[in-house]
Amino acid sequence: MKRVLYLLWIPFICTLAYAQPAKTDKKNLVYFSKEYFQIGGTRIDEQEKENAYDRLPLAYKEKVRKEVWDLSKASAGITVGFITNATTIAARWTVLNNFSMNHMAASGVRGVDLYVKEAGQWQYVNTGRPASGKETEATLISNMKGEQREYRLYLPLYDGVVSLQIGIDSGKTFSKPIPVTTKPIIFYGTSITQGGCASRPGMAHTNIIARKLDIECVNLGFSGNGRMEQPLAALLADTDALLYVIDCVPNMSKEMITANTGALVATIRQKRPTTPIVLVENTLYETAAHDLKLQEQLQQKNSNLKRIFDSLRAKAVSNLYYVPATNALGSDHEGTVDGVHFTDLGFSRFADHLIAAFRKYKLVPPARVK
Amino acid sequence: MKRVLYLLWIPFICTLAYAQPAKTDKKNLVYFSKEYFQIGGTRIDEQEKENAYDRLPLAYKEKVRKEVWDLSKASAGITVGFITNATTIAARWTVLNNFSMNHMAASGVRGVDLYVKEAGQWQYVNTGRPASGKETEATLISNMKGEQREYRLYLPLYDGVVSLQIGIDSGKTFSKPIPVTTKPIIFYGTSITQGGCASRPGMAHTNIIARKLDIECVNLGFSGNGRMEQPLAALLADTDALLYVIDCVPNMSKEMITANTGALVATIRQKRPTTPIVLVENTLYETAAHDLKLQEQLQQKNSNLKRIFDSLRAKAVSNLYYVPATNALGSDHEGTVDGVHFTDLGFSRFADHLIAAFRKYKLVPPARVK
Repeated sequence: MKRVLYLLWIPFICTLAYAQPAKTDKKNLVYFSKEYFQIGGTRIDEQEKENAYDRLPLAYKEKVRKEVWDLSKASAGITVGFITNATTIAARWTVLNNFSMNHMAASGVRGVDLYVKEAGQWQYVNTGRPASGKETEATLISNMKGEQREYRLYLPLYDGVVSLQIGIDSGKTFSKPIPVTTKPIIFYGTSITQGGCASRPGMAHTNIIARKLDIECVNLGFSGNGRMEQPLAALLADTDALLYVIDCVPNMSKEMITANTGALVATIRQKRPTTPIVLVENTLYETAAHDLKLQEQLQQKNSNLKRIFDSLRAKAVSNLYYVPATNALGSDHEGTVDGVHFTDLGFSRFADHLIAAFRKYKLVPPARVK
Repeated sequence: MKRVLYLLWIPFICTLAYAQPAKTDKKNLVYFSKEYFQIGGTRIDEQEKENAYDRLPLAYKEKVRKEVWDLSKASAGITVGFITNATTIAARWTVLNNFSMNHMAASGVRGVDLYVKEAGQWQYVNTGRPASGKETEATLISNMKGEQREYRLYLPLYDGVVSLQIGIDSGKTFSKPIPVTTKPIIFYGTSITQGGCASRPGMAHTNIIARKLDIECVNLGFSGNGRMEQPLAALLADTDALLYVIDCVPNMSKEMITANTGALVATIRQKRPTTPIVLVENTLYETAAHDLKLQEQLQQKNSNLKRIFDSLRAKAVSNLYYVPATNALGSDHEGTVDGVHFTDLGFSRFADHLIAAFRKYKLVPPARVK
């Protein structure tokens, strides 16, 4: 029924797009705002949010710590989908904080990047590199054939989006894709889950996994603040998921792991008795190969997580899975920018590591043999 | 003979290190300046340079265009080697320009990163992330075992280094490794060769290749200005090399390729009649998969390069090799930050692509079977 309704929308939306007053800018581009595209990577309705590109509902502003709330304004994992036959695509966007970091390119922190569906696969088109101020206007691609295709724009990983418009060459169509209604994979984690330090938004592992599996991924990574906390456990349980991936160990002490893991799982299980929950170990930071104190801390945290996992399984908690950190980034120690946070190389490997685990446990469809 | 002299130096240098006044800072670290370490990634003597970490001799200041000279002050590919039994390693460095870009992490632009030789292989230790100003002081690693090992620090890719000191915990040894005297691979190219947009200096492909093959690589990449120009051809010919890799097409028009390629090869051949010269095609920019105008330009430039390569070979120019761009970054279109410049993922793949070509043509030792 829902599907039928969505299909009915399409001509209406196209009409809206066509009905737009032909206000073109000096480059002869027409800009479309959020009424015209499909916001993805979130399962929270726009009406429940303070801002369309936020990751938490307004109701959670008082429920979570201020740090978590502030980080929820970063648009990590949020996508914008549209269908067009444009030959040129541009974007105008305004960020919330104009945030920057010394180990992550601004294009990942507050840029956007564009993909197109080609023969059923998502293929990178180009990046919108942010200006020095809060507002950017960038042509993403020109001189295209002008075929009707579906596009996906990934929004900034470490900054918020206050407003966004997509520009196309005048006289072309612009419409919404059919919304995704299949169950998503929901990731709850740390700075790494949030996408630190991908070179552009599409290279966060949650976004890579979404493309590779063609399954929507929801990013609830909160830099420095992924701690298996109860308000987030409740939020996770509120959304029916294909699976929940819990990757919080890097932001937790070994004591916190002992205290919070069981409660997180219990809260999810109350509402979702059978949905798979995947616990992920702390990756073995490259610096920890040399810094023996750090190495010991990591081992203690991971062994605490494993002990709790085993005890939950012993208590007959079903559909609970465990992903060890071994070779999560390969074996050459080259996947991070600072010994901790992943580069595009690290994210690419980590996405494959998680997909392999999901497949091993039969949580996602098996790999297609080419 | 040279080797013997170098070996004789070692105890002397160690003595110097020990003889240093025990001036420790508040963290109890002793800092060593360039007299105490080995500058690598260049074959130009320090006395011939304006600054120790420059890439061109002072004599070239008047020979090359101002843009090339200014870019030669960036320390791309320059390394610092030392042997120590420290448990903590720190660095203090001052950059020339405090340069920044919106699609490359500051850690790659003006940071440093440290590797250690482990069982004959270079292994990443950690990155020195740059401060917001020109001067940075960063602890790179602590809590190490304190074994005597050889370290290599990679210097900034897109900024110059005015001064650099390495700090170790007080009471430890600090000495120079034996200098590399085997022939280097010399790369002459563009922003991509210079390392745009690696997340940290060690991930530029020239540095990856140097580690993987254990062959010194010299980086003569000049962002936007690698144009197969005569002064650079002469400089290349001045240094005996294992091979010369010419990767300038991205910065050249198709006409410039026709005009300059033969002359570059001829200049090198005058002094180096048999040293292999490898001509590299323009990588097929990801944006060019969609931007048909750009696609056509790239195809024309690469086909011009191929035509000239074929004509040189027909004229019996020997030891001339050609590396096509096909699959240089893999086949998933994910290796760049902006459709053009490589991320760590792209550099990792491009290094393997070049190594495979070098091996195919038997220009470097064959792969060791593990």
